[in-house]
Amino acid sequence: MHRVKVRVVEDALDANNTIARANRDDFDRHGVTVLNVMSAPGAGKTTILERVLREGLGDLRVGVLEGDVQGSLDADRLAHLHIPVTQLNTGNGFGGECHLDANMVRSALPAIPLEDIDLLIVENVGNLVCPAEFRLGEDARIMVASVAEGDDKPGKYPLMFRACELVVVNKIDLLGHVDFDMDRFDYHLDAVHPGVARMRVSARTGEGLDELRGWLAALPDRAAAPAG
Amino acid sequence: MHRVKVRVVEDALDANNTIARANRDDFDRHGVTVLNVMSAPGAGKTTILERVLREGLGDLRVGVLEGDVQGSLDADRLAHLHIPVTQLNTGNGFGGECHLDANMVRSALPAIPLEDIDLLIVENVGNLVCPAEFRLGEDARIMVASVAEGDDKPGKYPLMFRACELVVVNKIDLLGHVDFDMDRFDYHLDAVHPGVARMRVSARTGEGLDELRGWLAALPDRAAAPAG
Repeated sequence: MHRVKVRVVEDALDANNTIARANRDDFDRHGVTVLNVMSAPGAGKTTILERVLREGLGDLRVGVLEGDVQGSLDADRLAHLHIPVTQLNTGNGFGGECHLDANMVRSALPAIPLEDIDLLIVENVGNLVCPAEFRLGEDARIMVASVAEGDDKPGKYPLMFRACELVVVNKIDLLGHVDFDMDRFDYHLDAVHPGVARMRVSARTGEGLDELRGWLAALPDRAAAPAG
Repeated sequence: MHRVKVRVVEDALDANNTIARANRDDFDRHGVTVLNVMSAPGAGKTTILERVLREGLGDLRVGVLEGDVQGSLDADRLAHLHIPVTQLNTGNGFGGECHLDANMVRSALPAIPLEDIDLLIVENVGNLVCPAEFRLGEDARIMVASVAEGDDKPGKYPLMFRACELVVVNKIDLLGHVDFDMDRFDYHLDAVHPGVARMRVSARTGEGLDELRGWLAALPDRAAAPAG
């Protein structure tokens, strides 16, 4: 049984990469930079987006693609921002998948006004395993970790912390109330992704969000720059 | 592509149920009651087990099966309890799965001293989607939710909160520091699993753990009682 299973996964990942490249072509044609935001459930992705996008990102026109197993609780929370928000449910025709894949994103493209936005932020399904395996055609990936989850998470879910350009440590306002040692977190993180960029923020108090806002605002220029 | 994918998942779930029944037979033969503990990453499963098992569960002889993508950080934390702890890594020969399935548990059975324990506690991989779909041959399932994750989680991950006999709300010591409304959580929980048993605990302070200890100690008798 095991060998068959591995073969299926590999085929699925091959197909995924093919479709991710097609998504990438569509994004490029419209000049849209795409960010994939990943985290465990409840790490604060939506609250961060809410706080960061409330003031906008300068001249950048931003859209959001909300990935959830079902429902639209997160999309509803972003409605007041008056930016294009598209809901993508993995439970609806996709069998309740625990992650977004390139084909799901592709099915949502007709509902996203690509011609009216410069930056598309994709909020992935809350999960620390599978989202890392499925490229969507994005330019960059952010991993959000909450201090309430503990400082050992990079060691337990290494692929996730490796498959990103930025690690955002959220809920630092709780640092006095939870058993979380930032040095130990950094130690675990550097073991799986040495020197990866990291920021410490509190979506609740707003601490650190200006730095994140700057990182996001500069993303289209960074994505357009030739690699190397 | 979509139709093929659904077929594969259904076959996998059928095979899983067949193997889960075989596990069940082996557990029954040894008189072992089995509990499947599920949660998002960092909700506090291991800390709860550490605190609850430190004092033991009366006459019950307890063993733990630790499910992780890789590493043995959690098993190491339980080592001082001097009970049998078996590590099961889904990244090792199982392709880095985001959940335990019946076949993985079956492969671990030879390493578990079934004849020396009465209660086997299986700590699943931290994930709020897929663990709910794969029965392991267990008698009961607990879902642990942390108040730091927010009060909307039952609405976002309904299958998980439906596929359990008890919901443990952990980290209630943080209630004054996070935006979590217990009534709203109960409202979302009752919408997906009306009247399910629930407990509020803090693995950090110990609050509520006596009640959980009582629930666990009575589990073998409840599991042995005829249904209805």
